[in-house]
Amino acid sequence: MLAITFLGTGTSMGVPVIRCSCEVCQSKDPRDQRLRSSIYVQTADCSWVVDTGAEFRIQALRANIQRVDAVLYTHSHADHVMGFDDLRRFGSVNSGRIPIYASKDTLQNLHRIFSYAFNSETRFAGYVHPEPHLVDGAFSLGNTEIHPIPVEHGRAHVFGFLFRQNGRSLVAYLSDCKTVYPEGLECLEGVETLILGTPCRRPHPTHMSFAEGVALAERLSPRRTFFTHLSHDFGHAATEKELPGNISLAYDGLRLDL
Amino acid sequence: MLAITFLGTGTSMGVPVIRCSCEVCQSKDPRDQRLRSSIYVQTADCSWVVDTGAEFRIQALRANIQRVDAVLYTHSHADHVMGFDDLRRFGSVNSGRIPIYASKDTLQNLHRIFSYAFNSETRFAGYVHPEPHLVDGAFSLGNTEIHPIPVEHGRAHVFGFLFRQNGRSLVAYLSDCKTVYPEGLECLEGVETLILGTPCRRPHPTHMSFAEGVALAERLSPRRTFFTHLSHDFGHAATEKELPGNISLAYDGLRLDL
Repeated sequence: MLAITFLGTGTSMGVPVIRCSCEVCQSKDPRDQRLRSSIYVQTADCSWVVDTGAEFRIQALRANIQRVDAVLYTHSHADHVMGFDDLRRFGSVNSGRIPIYASKDTLQNLHRIFSYAFNSETRFAGYVHPEPHLVDGAFSLGNTEIHPIPVEHGRAHVFGFLFRQNGRSLVAYLSDCKTVYPEGLECLEGVETLILGTPCRRPHPTHMSFAEGVALAERLSPRRTFFTHLSHDFGHAATEKELPGNISLAYDGLRLDL
Repeated sequence: MLAITFLGTGTSMGVPVIRCSCEVCQSKDPRDQRLRSSIYVQTADCSWVVDTGAEFRIQALRANIQRVDAVLYTHSHADHVMGFDDLRRFGSVNSGRIPIYASKDTLQNLHRIFSYAFNSETRFAGYVHPEPHLVDGAFSLGNTEIHPIPVEHGRAHVFGFLFRQNGRSLVAYLSDCKTVYPEGLECLEGVETLILGTPCRRPHPTHMSFAEGVALAERLSPRRTFFTHLSHDFGHAATEKELPGNISLAYDGLRLDL
């Protein structure tokens, strides 16, 4: 069993965008209100979040999250990490610590940004107490195998994550990605559900465009694909009509039981 | 003319607190929903925010802020700065820059945390483009004199701010403060409206308690006092009944026309 709840499906600026009066930013459809991209993953024996953007506190309250056993980071851009401090409410009951899984580069940036939390001399009782785990290959949380998938996203070192249980590649989450390297494509073969960040309609130097996302979904042909990390280029209702039947736009609060 | 809108009135954990089932955290009273402390100040010729906590994007949308000419920082603790990136939507129409007023210590920490934004090599078009202003004494924004008031708050270098117009000390904002130094008390004499952070009922090592806030208000005897930076110790309706008539609890969205 693996369930994914989309805590946020927006880009770095979210939707609505501050001071924007476009149709999508003025939309009353709750599916057009997008906090910064993040997912909450629940399995039979373990629960984790992927990324903690600035609005993580609001996302955790909204989804009524009671348990976070670990945090996985795709990368350390501002829209993916600035809510880190709010993990303080999820420390382990025994140690107060929360395991953080990330690349060397991301761990270094988290350490730089939240130095008070990584330093036992400046970390007071009640502060978030991270337990860093360097991700340099597949690892497990409970009965789920997690395969990091390095992807191209400008100058940042970024991971997508593939979640496998009992020999099945249940779902892959690639939020910030221009292209997937050949080894990654190989790793993604046979994935049942694919989640791709496609923030814009026009080609973008560091992100997959909408059309590139459709092409990748066609190439990998998972059963279902969800697009996330969406800008105000996309009004939910209108965009859904453009998409092939097995591709959908994710929205904040959407839960997938896989 | 000077108007203050409370963008947030909560402590570092906000209210409700994640995973808390206390009466205040379960309250349906909107005045018991507190985002991280911040104010928006509007004058005839200039508008600014004090602090940008993680929820700044949501606060700016909620208050329909269309203009931010400058940002003042009290200090660089996580609950006061982590929404900095969302200032990108308020850069000056001409230069894209946004003036940032803070102490040396706070500017250094902002530079460390948001290094990509301070570095012209890593700051892409559309990113927040800060223009740092070191605060080492009084300065002006439009027709408002701004007096920084160094206060004691643990190991951090923290400012309160006094806003003066036409020889009147209209309002002072001291969000994070254990004690005000004698020079600060002198500077605050005659202040008409006082805003004090009083996060808790019990004595706290780095913050003013509720009782200490009441004592300071009595000593300075402004016309009105508002308490902010409030934890879940305080249910709005019940706490208001305990307070002297000239002291009130602030709440998110409250606007003062001074």
